[in-house]
Amino acid sequence: MSSGEDDLIARYFRPVATAPGALGLVDDAAVLQPAGDDIVVTADAIVAGVHFLPDDPPDTVARKALRVNLSDLAAKGATPAGFVLTLALREVSESWLAPFARALGDDAVHFDCPLLGGDTVSTPGPLTVSITAFGRVPPGRMVRRSTAKPGDHVMVSGSIGDAVLGLAILKGASSGAGEDARAALADRYRVPQPRVTLALAVRDHASAAMDVSDGLMGDLAKLCAASGVSAAIEAAAVPLSPSARGWLQRDSAAIGMLVSGGDDYEILCTVPDHRLAAFEAAAEETGTSVSRIGRIVSGKAPPKLLDARQQEIALARLSYSHF
Amino acid sequence: MSSGEDDLIARYFRPVATAPGALGLVDDAAVLQPAGDDIVVTADAIVAGVHFLPDDPPDTVARKALRVNLSDLAAKGATPAGFVLTLALREVSESWLAPFARALGDDAVHFDCPLLGGDTVSTPGPLTVSITAFGRVPPGRMVRRSTAKPGDHVMVSGSIGDAVLGLAILKGASSGAGEDARAALADRYRVPQPRVTLALAVRDHASAAMDVSDGLMGDLAKLCAASGVSAAIEAAAVPLSPSARGWLQRDSAAIGMLVSGGDDYEILCTVPDHRLAAFEAAAEETGTSVSRIGRIVSGKAPPKLLDARQQEIALARLSYSHF
Repeated sequence: MSSGEDDLIARYFRPVATAPGALGLVDDAAVLQPAGDDIVVTADAIVAGVHFLPDDPPDTVARKALRVNLSDLAAKGATPAGFVLTLALREVSESWLAPFARALGDDAVHFDCPLLGGDTVSTPGPLTVSITAFGRVPPGRMVRRSTAKPGDHVMVSGSIGDAVLGLAILKGASSGAGEDARAALADRYRVPQPRVTLALAVRDHASAAMDVSDGLMGDLAKLCAASGVSAAIEAAAVPLSPSARGWLQRDSAAIGMLVSGGDDYEILCTVPDHRLAAFEAAAEETGTSVSRIGRIVSGKAPPKLLDARQQEIALARLSYSHF
Repeated sequence: MSSGEDDLIARYFRPVATAPGALGLVDDAAVLQPAGDDIVVTADAIVAGVHFLPDDPPDTVARKALRVNLSDLAAKGATPAGFVLTLALREVSESWLAPFARALGDDAVHFDCPLLGGDTVSTPGPLTVSITAFGRVPPGRMVRRSTAKPGDHVMVSGSIGDAVLGLAILKGASSGAGEDARAALADRYRVPQPRVTLALAVRDHASAAMDVSDGLMGDLAKLCAASGVSAAIEAAAVPLSPSARGWLQRDSAAIGMLVSGGDDYEILCTVPDHRLAAFEAAAEETGTSVSRIGRIVSGKAPPKLLDARQQEIALARLSYSHF
């Protein structure tokens, strides 16, 4: 009796929809029981040929689709509560869907963010994976973009620029990097590492936060604009992986690409001076590195990237834009 | 400083994102404050050329995208709480986006379902509008598909089959119907009328419910399968508009198309005998008609459509499937 769409859902996605509120994916809707929390809602879609490469492996596409949303939740100080998946498919291929669903299920378990429901539609266009994810925060505690203050430290997690180098490598750039480094950078583009473990440190200590998805300097510019402030960033303090550092040694102009390329999925946040030690201690407990890269300053100017002599480094662009 | 995507959001969607939890669409996420309710979550996407015609007017595309989700919420007994929009666009066209956003805003106000956030991405494929909508029910009160019992009345709101006739007309079918009737049927395909006002009657009196989106008999088959029951439906009791009735008089075989065509967006629900009078009275107060079309029976067989002599009417297919 089932339609093809129901068969597809039953075969591939029901096994990973283990939360009680998902109702085994046999209903039209799912239930979220907030239990006193605010629900933080975020939506991010990825399109083949735009956000991932058409021949990327299905498991990395699944992980990227979920993780870009988990990154948003973490930056808002929220713990994952679940997600819904809308999949626009050109065709139903067992060899693509099986590893996609399996990886999605693995990540859902790993990040404790269960699949609650969704929709599957056919499209003559590129494969598109849209996820709306939900997180929990105590009432009124979501960390915003718009609340940074002059004097706050600008902090960023992990390392910046690896994903854009990975994309360059996947598109054929010769980097001079060794095979292992090239694979690690490509992996960083394909499979973000959302900083879910930093969510509580951000919630407890940051004055403002967002994730870095479109490029560090461009996303910082958005945070500054929303907060009505500016910022001064020390280029030398921007955390780089050994691979990115090696790339920069071979091509010093690459700093612009590193700080304006997308897909880092690190947390960018501002922390008041009196919270700095507590934030750094809380972050250290999670094992995720955080770096002080500059300060929020008053003014409306775009944030500046400064070299060792405090001269501004001109950037051709600040971030990736779809349009 | 803003990217093109931010400009697009600011220009077209910020004016319609009036809920406090939307944070003016300047943040990465929105906040839903459940205030003790369960949050019902539903997701439905519509794709140009699949769910709507590529040259459908932008205002009807916006209304359809939101309303198919509102229909799901109503069928679950939930009152609207808000939605997030993921828009995959081939290009940014002022003449398309302006009426799209205006109509979306009008419907958001009309149905008291505010825009909370979303994502806008570029695609080389067809325009795709994905919406995840949220509703509220008191804890534990979401009406499910899986709880129909033998003996329950099968009820459906409004009228069935108009949308599939409208689609046939838009695709060039000659119907013998007059110009006004043809326009009304086409409008029924393009702009569903979600039965939001029936939500409380469904929540208070229905044993199980879902909306009719893929065809009455196919959706009933899903409800029956989820509940472990079957059903007997009287073809003569299926509510038809005067236009559909006229069509059927000219082509008696059209009954199959009417009960298996999609896009009705009516509420299909089951109501125990002792709740029937109260359900009908509650529905009447809302001004939305509901019709008794048959009964739930025990068994696992697909639901049967019966003619006036209680003979089964064979159907070539029960519903629309994407795959």
